[in-house]
Amino acid sequence: MPSNIEIAQAATMRPITEIAEGLGIPDEALEPYGRHKAKVSLPFLNGLPRRPGSRLVLVTAVSPTPAGEGKTTTTVGLGDALTRIGEDAMICLREPALGPVFGMKGGAAGGGHAQVVPMEDINLHFTGDFAAIGVATNLLAALIDNHVHHGNALGIDVRRVTWRRVLDVNDRALRDVVVGLGGPGNGYPRESGFDIVVASEVMAVFCLASDLADLKRRLGDIVVAQTRERTPVRARDLDAQGAMAAILRDALSPNLVQTLEHTPAFVHGGPFANIAHGCNSAIATRSALKLADYVVTEAGFGADLGAEKFVDILCRSTGLRPSAAVIVATVRAMKYHGGVEVADLPVEDVAALRRGCANIARHLSTVRETWGIPAVVAINHRAEDTDAEVQALVEEVQAAGGRAIVARHYAEGGAGAEELARAVVELCDQPSELAFTYPDDAPLWQKMRAIATRVYGASDITASTAVRAQIRRLQEDGYGHLPVCVAKTQYSFSTDGKLRGAPSDHVVDIREVRLAAGAGFVVMICGDIMTMPGLPAVPAAATIDVEDDGRIVGLF
Amino acid sequence: MPSNIEIAQAATMRPITEIAEGLGIPDEALEPYGRHKAKVSLPFLNGLPRRPGSRLVLVTAVSPTPAGEGKTTTTVGLGDALTRIGEDAMICLREPALGPVFGMKGGAAGGGHAQVVPMEDINLHFTGDFAAIGVATNLLAALIDNHVHHGNALGIDVRRVTWRRVLDVNDRALRDVVVGLGGPGNGYPRESGFDIVVASEVMAVFCLASDLADLKRRLGDIVVAQTRERTPVRARDLDAQGAMAAILRDALSPNLVQTLEHTPAFVHGGPFANIAHGCNSAIATRSALKLADYVVTEAGFGADLGAEKFVDILCRSTGLRPSAAVIVATVRAMKYHGGVEVADLPVEDVAALRRGCANIARHLSTVRETWGIPAVVAINHRAEDTDAEVQALVEEVQAAGGRAIVARHYAEGGAGAEELARAVVELCDQPSELAFTYPDDAPLWQKMRAIATRVYGASDITASTAVRAQIRRLQEDGYGHLPVCVAKTQYSFSTDGKLRGAPSDHVVDIREVRLAAGAGFVVMICGDIMTMPGLPAVPAAATIDVEDDGRIVGLF
Repeated sequence: MPSNIEIAQAATMRPITEIAEGLGIPDEALEPYGRHKAKVSLPFLNGLPRRPGSRLVLVTAVSPTPAGEGKTTTTVGLGDALTRIGEDAMICLREPALGPVFGMKGGAAGGGHAQVVPMEDINLHFTGDFAAIGVATNLLAALIDNHVHHGNALGIDVRRVTWRRVLDVNDRALRDVVVGLGGPGNGYPRESGFDIVVASEVMAVFCLASDLADLKRRLGDIVVAQTRERTPVRARDLDAQGAMAAILRDALSPNLVQTLEHTPAFVHGGPFANIAHGCNSAIATRSALKLADYVVTEAGFGADLGAEKFVDILCRSTGLRPSAAVIVATVRAMKYHGGVEVADLPVEDVAALRRGCANIARHLSTVRETWGIPAVVAINHRAEDTDAEVQALVEEVQAAGGRAIVARHYAEGGAGAEELARAVVELCDQPSELAFTYPDDAPLWQKMRAIATRVYGASDITASTAVRAQIRRLQEDGYGHLPVCVAKTQYSFSTDGKLRGAPSDHVVDIREVRLAAGAGFVVMICGDIMTMPGLPAVPAAATIDVEDDGRIVGLF
Repeated sequence: MPSNIEIAQAATMRPITEIAEGLGIPDEALEPYGRHKAKVSLPFLNGLPRRPGSRLVLVTAVSPTPAGEGKTTTTVGLGDALTRIGEDAMICLREPALGPVFGMKGGAAGGGHAQVVPMEDINLHFTGDFAAIGVATNLLAALIDNHVHHGNALGIDVRRVTWRRVLDVNDRALRDVVVGLGGPGNGYPRESGFDIVVASEVMAVFCLASDLADLKRRLGDIVVAQTRERTPVRARDLDAQGAMAAILRDALSPNLVQTLEHTPAFVHGGPFANIAHGCNSAIATRSALKLADYVVTEAGFGADLGAEKFVDILCRSTGLRPSAAVIVATVRAMKYHGGVEVADLPVEDVAALRRGCANIARHLSTVRETWGIPAVVAINHRAEDTDAEVQALVEEVQAAGGRAIVARHYAEGGAGAEELARAVVELCDQPSELAFTYPDDAPLWQKMRAIATRVYGASDITASTAVRAQIRRLQEDGYGHLPVCVAKTQYSFSTDGKLRGAPSDHVVDIREVRLAAGAGFVVMICGDIMTMPGLPAVPAAATIDVEDDGRIVGLF
């Protein structure tokens, strides 16, 4: 089978104006970026009426493994399959970050015959949204140090500046730095660090904002530092939110592209799924629901992290409600969860696969029982999966009270996922009511405890005295109503990434708490969270190249 | 008179497709970015035949002063005036850097009734070129530290890594930093720093490259560090050039916009005029000369820095030849050069103005006599200039053997610069032959001496033993054929920014030498050069805002 980029480059795309026309978007609401990408005017989208009966489908997954599950690929394949069976469908995806493209991860625009295109553009700069988010983040950082340099009227404690700069490059050397060296002309030396763009609170704000005014309000609310008296210093105190919003103005309009099979797709925003909520922009999803009958979207990592935040952060704050969920699994991932090492994954091992299905059973139960979302499991089929393995996976899901459907969109495009699409349509017709993991008015500690016990299968949560005091203080300062955003390893239900399957009765220790006042959640960090990845010994950058005729090669 | 942004926002722009059509650019060679910006396909432009008789006009200026001269404004006004008198004209400008927009400088898309539009877009992210240049620069930096982290097979001496990271934000706290702190997982701690994007050698490479293949070759040539044995380490040694070129692929196509009066303009690239050559991309200028009879372009800072590099770096390496030059002056700038302080500039002072004209006389003499470019002085008129002052300026230029023409494009648009346009057309009809300041085969020391004595009016150059040894070594290593790029203060012919007018017999001390092997020049730093500006006490960011309807305000 040809590589992702070969398939993408061989595709015949329709002009983006034609895709827009199919959605009823008038020419004057479209800002083309080249021939195959466009931004759709936000005032136009916000002015559209609600579309009665439009359905939101969430694609989530088992706990991620090195084997790969193919959530984005399945989102695309399902969108194409819905289109093929005659439904009016759209998909919403996160924008890939540039840094990982040159590191290990490669592109993030789907795979095989289920991709959004133009794949190289989407993976490289696309329409510049991440660059804008980077500049807005870094301008705020410069304004902080500049304020201190010019007399520090606000009394910022340079030891308590929490705002970090960002780059869209994987660069471990920037994780911990000292800035402001070189003498009085360069400000006051202090410790700081850089994150990758997707980790910026500006990204989370961008993805939760409903319009430009809401964006500006949220940007102003961001807490960047404390004074010596521990009074929070906000972006608003530095008059930063206006310039930041000006920088983000164009970026806030969603980006329209198409799949290989011409299903329209919004690819917009892309916050981390650990220290942020991991879903594409609310503006894109809300807009898509006005333009199509079925909107397929995805959430980051596995259902314990991504879907939980989709429910408790995104749905709670925006009023969005999913009509169905698809949980993506692969034979390889289930074998890995059953204890098989990466090198042995190509070998058939039905027993291990059955053991590993404890992972999917728990995710399925949370999605259906805890949150009340009708759900189906999609087996993202790979050529080397044996029939016995596939059959065992189907049976295990059945035993857990669910239904698993083999989907072959990677190899066959939308045609390979028609059965999945029909099942999703059926699920959407079932009445359902979304339940949150915890009520708004539960104290922060109880919220975290509810997530750990109800979603992670933990027996309890713990925290040091200092962290407990921090949580108490946030509660007292009036942030108790906010939802909790858990940052923990995505590889396990527990906080130990090596515990595969479905560990139970573990204890979740909260190591650190951070307020994201602009985004509107309290981040509880449980374990080591990497907000600036490094590059591997042989990074993808070494093989990515561009031919003299402009064709990009080596991107995978 | 309304502000720049008010004038720009009130303008009626033509669709960019219409502007392109007027230039004979077919639809398939145009990549629209919204309705009023587009990239023009580089293969299309490179495939166009040369246009016999097309003329290049260089706009340069007196030594910059805090009063402002209006070089970009005059470039735009002249382009519009040429169009008005019936000529087929285009202009080429540098892209504004985002950092200074939020600092002190404000926008850089012209002023008054002589602007390129959409002004906010051009000043903010435009088509993402600078973001791409930033990512390419920072990816190379990450690859260096990553190589060292993963075993350092090349033997890079971390004390001798010269490659710096960049941001498009004015941020003094990043001038000197220590990176790689936090333990073994984060690499080896070392001193480093950040520059503003326009200072990256990638920007200079981008602006001198002729096509994608040349870009990649130049990127590979960049020297980023030395080994302990002082062997240079190149980007090529890190396999970086392919990925960097892939990142820059789309950016390399020039950006087409229009002036307020619909004259077509390429706005593309923007290297610093001190540590780099300060001209828009060679690709843009060369392409414009295939599309129009008259192409007006500008060079950074005053003629001693900008025009000298235009001649000795850009023209030398690309074969471009200017048919005429316009030297921009203002009454206020001449009074400042005559010794008037900023606060007193509004007061008429003919005597000071006459004294200050020594500055323009020297620039005029260099342009005409040293380089052999037919030249005229444009007096960029301001409402408060008195008739006596304007008259004195005209007389002083006459006394220096030149001609000065009052141009009122700021207030009147192209109509105010018609006399200037007619004079430029006449100059272009004069036969001329460009002479460089020094021959290719002069040793580096002699090249620097030629610039200092022939252009700056200096009596000699000096350097420490260490710097002399460095120059000798570059000469021995085979870089002696490269042109010299002088980085010194733009405010004076000397290296002391406070010496106004036309100081003579000063001595230019070379403090530091840097090889820009990718760009193809040797930078000689004479004085303090700021490659990362800071923000003022009240930055422009504090007043820039965006209204709920998306209108950007406070940008100036």
